[in-house]
Amino acid sequence: MTSSSKIPTEFNDERRSTRKHRAILGAAATVFLRNGYLGTSMDEIATLAGVSKQTVYKHFADKERLFVEIVISTVNEISDPVHEEVLNLPDSGDVEADLCDLARRQLARVMQPRLLQLRRLVIGEASRFPQLGRTFYERGPGRTIAALATAFERLAERGVLQLEDPALAAAQFNWLIMSAPINQAMLLGRDEAPAPADLNRYAHGGVRAFLAAYRNR
Amino acid sequence: MTSSSKIPTEFNDERRSTRKHRAILGAAATVFLRNGYLGTSMDEIATLAGVSKQTVYKHFADKERLFVEIVISTVNEISDPVHEEVLNLPDSGDVEADLCDLARRQLARVMQPRLLQLRRLVIGEASRFPQLGRTFYERGPGRTIAALATAFERLAERGVLQLEDPALAAAQFNWLIMSAPINQAMLLGRDEAPAPADLNRYAHGGVRAFLAAYRNR
Repeated sequence: MTSSSKIPTEFNDERRSTRKHRAILGAAATVFLRNGYLGTSMDEIATLAGVSKQTVYKHFADKERLFVEIVISTVNEISDPVHEEVLNLPDSGDVEADLCDLARRQLARVMQPRLLQLRRLVIGEASRFPQLGRTFYERGPGRTIAALATAFERLAERGVLQLEDPALAAAQFNWLIMSAPINQAMLLGRDEAPAPADLNRYAHGGVRAFLAAYRNR
Repeated sequence: MTSSSKIPTEFNDERRSTRKHRAILGAAATVFLRNGYLGTSMDEIATLAGVSKQTVYKHFADKERLFVEIVISTVNEISDPVHEEVLNLPDSGDVEADLCDLARRQLARVMQPRLLQLRRLVIGEASRFPQLGRTFYERGPGRTIAALATAFERLAERGVLQLEDPALAAAQFNWLIMSAPINQAMLLGRDEAPAPADLNRYAHGGVRAFLAAYRNR
């Protein structure tokens, strides 16, 4: 009886702890994005998560570590599938269609309101937390651009593209697609995803300019 | 005697007032950029400007109006000459050289530490002050892109470029040149201007990609 009653209790404790951990992370994301770093208190996070302040501190040593955790998990969640898609860029024989499809999917992921708000917050705090901005950059756009460079080198080996500086071409592709909507969203404080027609215009316009520059003739 | 003694006094009062106005603006810019909007107090600005807090309030009704003034004057100061240069884009017959020269000068202006810090601050505050981000965008990149569209339409009329969507081509030119260094500076919290070799790589690489897409053949 001892062992059979013990295991479920530990299991329940663990489940309860995981549930609280997730509730705290969810509440913290909401409060940080709404009030900024300075405007956020552990009290408010505890209230929203429905746990005691002590519990919050048991899971996260301080506000800074909780903030870092929110940034890393949000960026990974969005950037992991983007990275996958870039590395698995198909080669259907129609490079324009393949790249447009990739660009539209990248744009739709990166223009999610939650990531835009977080990006704004991280930029606003970049002088206080330079390491956090660096992490955002490296796990976000930096990783995507590196994967694009690899994908484009492969297309160059197959004679589809002609490149001198794959890293520069990858950065240009990324920013040809992303810059106009991201920079507008950053400065205008707009969080809605762009309309599908605008997504198409940025994606298609960016890919056409990119291919005009780098398609092998 | 009355009139001759009166004029210099008024004149001196005005000069003193202008001097204080400038001292407050300079101090406010320093404190806002160092501490952010929430972290800045009118007290600290008064102390740094060497005036009383009352004097600060006589010149600027509240912290918000002072912040708006700093943003508008800084953006105008940097964006006015960029706008001029774009509208006066020379036509030497060597469009690649002309655009590279323009791109290098644009980059050097936009990558000034003070403007990068301010851009970061405005982005961080865009949900609190959406109007301010909009002003930054409209007087900064928005105005430059509109001027580029006009300049490129002129080049298209002369048969140098071939364009379907001048506004899109202008945005692409702007972001091909600016995006990599600006987005890195934003997230990495770096304020130094890029090394001249990097400025050249961004400018030249951006112009080459742009012309590959839009030069009339």
